[in-house]
Amino acid sequence: MKNKQFLLAARPVGLPTRQNWDYVETEVAELADNQVLIQVEYISLDPAMRGWMNDGKSYIEPVQIGAVMRAGTVGKVLKSTSSEFSEGDYVYGHCGVQKYAVVGIEGLHKIDPSLAPLERYLGVLGMPGMTAYFGLLDTGLPKAGETVVVSGAAGAVGSIVGQIAKIKGCRVVGIAGGADKCAYLVNELGFDAAIDYKSEDVQKALRAACPKGVDVYFDNVGGDILDNVLTQIRMKARIVICGAISQYNNTTAVKGPSNYLSLLVNRARMEGIVVFDNVANYSKAATEMAGWIAEGKLIAKEHVVKGIEHFPETLLMLFNGENMGKLVLKVEAD
Amino acid sequence: MKNKQFLLAARPVGLPTRQNWDYVETEVAELADNQVLIQVEYISLDPAMRGWMNDGKSYIEPVQIGAVMRAGTVGKVLKSTSSEFSEGDYVYGHCGVQKYAVVGIEGLHKIDPSLAPLERYLGVLGMPGMTAYFGLLDTGLPKAGETVVVSGAAGAVGSIVGQIAKIKGCRVVGIAGGADKCAYLVNELGFDAAIDYKSEDVQKALRAACPKGVDVYFDNVGGDILDNVLTQIRMKARIVICGAISQYNNTTAVKGPSNYLSLLVNRARMEGIVVFDNVANYSKAATEMAGWIAEGKLIAKEHVVKGIEHFPETLLMLFNGENMGKLVLKVEAD
Repeated sequence: MKNKQFLLAARPVGLPTRQNWDYVETEVAELADNQVLIQVEYISLDPAMRGWMNDGKSYIEPVQIGAVMRAGTVGKVLKSTSSEFSEGDYVYGHCGVQKYAVVGIEGLHKIDPSLAPLERYLGVLGMPGMTAYFGLLDTGLPKAGETVVVSGAAGAVGSIVGQIAKIKGCRVVGIAGGADKCAYLVNELGFDAAIDYKSEDVQKALRAACPKGVDVYFDNVGGDILDNVLTQIRMKARIVICGAISQYNNTTAVKGPSNYLSLLVNRARMEGIVVFDNVANYSKAATEMAGWIAEGKLIAKEHVVKGIEHFPETLLMLFNGENMGKLVLKVEAD
Repeated sequence: MKNKQFLLAARPVGLPTRQNWDYVETEVAELADNQVLIQVEYISLDPAMRGWMNDGKSYIEPVQIGAVMRAGTVGKVLKSTSSEFSEGDYVYGHCGVQKYAVVGIEGLHKIDPSLAPLERYLGVLGMPGMTAYFGLLDTGLPKAGETVVVSGAAGAVGSIVGQIAKIKGCRVVGIAGGADKCAYLVNELGFDAAIDYKSEDVQKALRAACPKGVDVYFDNVGGDILDNVLTQIRMKARIVICGAISQYNNTTAVKGPSNYLSLLVNRARMEGIVVFDNVANYSKAATEMAGWIAEGKLIAKEHVVKGIEHFPETLLMLFNGENMGKLVLKVEAD
């Protein structure tokens, strides 16, 4: 039984390249006590992975050189020496970029493939969905009638943020790259407006799309777009800092928001979130979101690329803005 | 009766110079209905005045070219056509940089010179004190045992912030420029530690002075010091954005905080404040602070410069870090 694995070979400078990865085929290890052997079926590709490749203190340990790249995964239990998991169970876990994983049971939880397609547990019913749900509702605190702006709006988190804000009665404006994504946000997801940052003057477009100003900004991108939104916030606005994908591959310092003094002028707040803080409430959120999906109020979309061998270039799709919806890698090529 | 006035002659680029001001001597106008004539005795000099000299949207209208420069003042009512104020009353108001002011009664309130020296109503019992009190307590939310860091710590606001944090049982670290100021913070105001940003590596000094990290940062300065503190914040830290004096005279863009993603890693918050939002509660705060002063727990210090003619160079003392405590200009030279 041959494993296929991507190991972190070297820490990237700027965008990761093929040289940052070692692809290896290895023997699958024997199980020790209280372990499971998982056949990974889908691998989650997330902007946060770029941060995990860096050395230094963050909200989670960096991936070590020579280690299997960390990733959220869903898969099937093939063998188990744990009383909590049995052969045939489907599980979510951080099993990494590999075909088979021999792991302890910490952080694993069962999922039900009869309730939703497996890959959806990496999207709206997984980390991106939880990030959107708790980040928007608990930190953004949107009220009906307010204006919510989200960047990375066609991505895994942003598309859910915007739809939840619509469910809560807000005016919702998405910022995304390209006419296709913008059309998708307005025509399929029901956003009130979308701004194509690649072809529009974002600040001017924001003024037009948010005539009353911005009450909540959910930021996935940082950089110039954060600065543009800062010029349009209303009094007591809440800015949720979820990520800064525009800055993750910088080879120079992160661009701090030059317009941050707008927080002062507008008595506004900028607050960071990390989804793991809400783990105790994940199932409540997943239940509510599954309900919205069933009612047709929340559309989940996964962008599936097939073949674990394509991991290096598929990861780059995130940074090039090529995915629409949640990007996942299916381990098998067929 | 000759008035002495400083008018805004031109909007400054960078530090204000003598060319930005017109000094004029004019006749004092007659009173219309519901007005008062005030003899201004003390003029408040505040970092915020630099912002008022710029054009563009802010939390308050810019001063117009040719208008008397806006400033907080205390003075004596010489004549009144209002039923609310009588000759001989002492009042606080925004009467501007001039010896006499003929003004409506909006924004004026009586003060009692028998309870505190007049100039103190521009400091701890005025805007800077209110800014410190509400900014620290309502937005910083310090808890006993937490570590509070304040920049501009020897200034009008910072010195009060640090002392209130001590009263609330916090470990307090001040950042100020120069050995004299640092000694004053520790020896006279009871701060636990002080960092001289002019001679010390602020980040290293913060690590030493805040071994558990920073729970509350009250920022008066922005720039590199804000970035340094961002690297040392604890989980769920609160950063109060009160001002950014290091940036007010920039001729290039404001330096945004490059380390703002520390908010994400630490689930921390950065929030702006404007003192005017608390006007309904000023008197409660002033009463509490007057009590602390009477008990010897809160030391108020004013830095008085005499002679309205010295306004242009005295204002610059703020930006050169030359004042210790609240900077005020006494209109009369003697």
